[in-house]
Amino acid sequence: MRIKITVRYDGSAYCGWQIQPNGVSVQEILQNAISVVTGEKDILLVGSGRTDSGVHAEGQVAHFDTQSSIPPNKFFRAINVHLPSDIRVTDSQEVNEDFNARKSAKQKTYCYSFYVDNTENPLKDRFATFLDRMPDIEKMKKASALFIGKHDFKCFNASGGGAKTTVRTIYNIDIKDDDGIKIFVTGNGFLYNMVRTLCGTLLSVGYGEKSEEDIQKMLITGDRKLCGKTLPAKGLCLVNVDYK
Amino acid sequence: MRIKITVRYDGSAYCGWQIQPNGVSVQEILQNAISVVTGEKDILLVGSGRTDSGVHAEGQVAHFDTQSSIPPNKFFRAINVHLPSDIRVTDSQEVNEDFNARKSAKQKTYCYSFYVDNTENPLKDRFATFLDRMPDIEKMKKASALFIGKHDFKCFNASGGGAKTTVRTIYNIDIKDDDGIKIFVTGNGFLYNMVRTLCGTLLSVGYGEKSEEDIQKMLITGDRKLCGKTLPAKGLCLVNVDYK
Repeated sequence: MRIKITVRYDGSAYCGWQIQPNGVSVQEILQNAISVVTGEKDILLVGSGRTDSGVHAEGQVAHFDTQSSIPPNKFFRAINVHLPSDIRVTDSQEVNEDFNARKSAKQKTYCYSFYVDNTENPLKDRFATFLDRMPDIEKMKKASALFIGKHDFKCFNASGGGAKTTVRTIYNIDIKDDDGIKIFVTGNGFLYNMVRTLCGTLLSVGYGEKSEEDIQKMLITGDRKLCGKTLPAKGLCLVNVDYK
Repeated sequence: MRIKITVRYDGSAYCGWQIQPNGVSVQEILQNAISVVTGEKDILLVGSGRTDSGVHAEGQVAHFDTQSSIPPNKFFRAINVHLPSDIRVTDSQEVNEDFNARKSAKQKTYCYSFYVDNTENPLKDRFATFLDRMPDIEKMKKASALFIGKHDFKCFNASGGGAKTTVRTIYNIDIKDDDGIKIFVTGNGFLYNMVRTLCGTLLSVGYGEKSEEDIQKMLITGDRKLCGKTLPAKGLCLVNVDYK
């Protein structure tokens, strides 16, 4: 049977979701735990997509196939027993064989978090990026509308991405500033570093360093040099993955 | 001149505030950083009081004397340059020679944080304690009133405390349950482990394991066996220290 799991993790200690030769990945830790639980050595865990080194997840989704007789909705508790405290499976359920955590994903939502203070805050700094002054949120909201829709996001394509096409669709960008500043970005997929550079560009607009015209230009020309800087990984979290 | 500083820290990595022979303390790290900044070897940093191993602080207060010519309100930035990322001084100011961070303190507020979920949450678990079901908040609020006022809190006096008297005054207990559950406890001082055991007792009431009568009995008899369990350090944070 095929099991779909939802996973939450503090990515600080990992080289990202995907198994890498030089570092410990979330996928590797999870696959090993599932192997221990099922007694099956050849578990292959397929995630909805990578998260980069240091990026967190509230609701990453993955699937694996197993012959185990553990009831599907009990699986997550059995796996958790074998996980370090910075990774937890929050849900498990049986899905049809045609469900694929990566290919069936319709949209993903990431959240980038900032906090504004007079110095770094050790109680917040693990999951958010420090700002020493408040950016103009209204300017950021207005500029964010320019990214909505289907665009060639070549300008955000970091070297090392290796994507076949740089065209992506962004469905929504929601900016909240009640408890810190949070930028929620929902799209059908994202290039390597794309959310962090997009949010860095919006921050530059909020500080008056970039304009809406600059955004229009970077989308037309695909020139990465026009973008804002790529923000640190620690402020980014994969909130959820939607399937229809 | 005498400098008063306000300090925020993630206590996870420390044996507590106070210098100990067998562990790294927040006080030691701060004293060393201040010595580097001032060039004075004999800096003595006096805190408002100890925080236990693993307990965090949002607003710990301390003072030290120095001959340095650094402007008082610039001190905190100079010290921060020499601190690890889990400790930050958020404010510094000159105070009169009769100000003493410990002796002049009028009241302190601690906060104990819980989150309720179906499994541990790696994104919250560093600063809060996991509960697998919701306690009855109204029962907890009602019971908390019994602790308000001047009482002999002998029942909460952990071995190793060594306090001269176990009489303390609690001015206020505020329980909030919007984003997780937070118990704010304000008093003129606290015994070793007192807040963690008091909150553990309130939690037991919320789960129907202890009653208001049990609280009355523990306060009268001073019997520690009647109390709820001492909660983990990681959920506790010294919010602020008030001076008149």
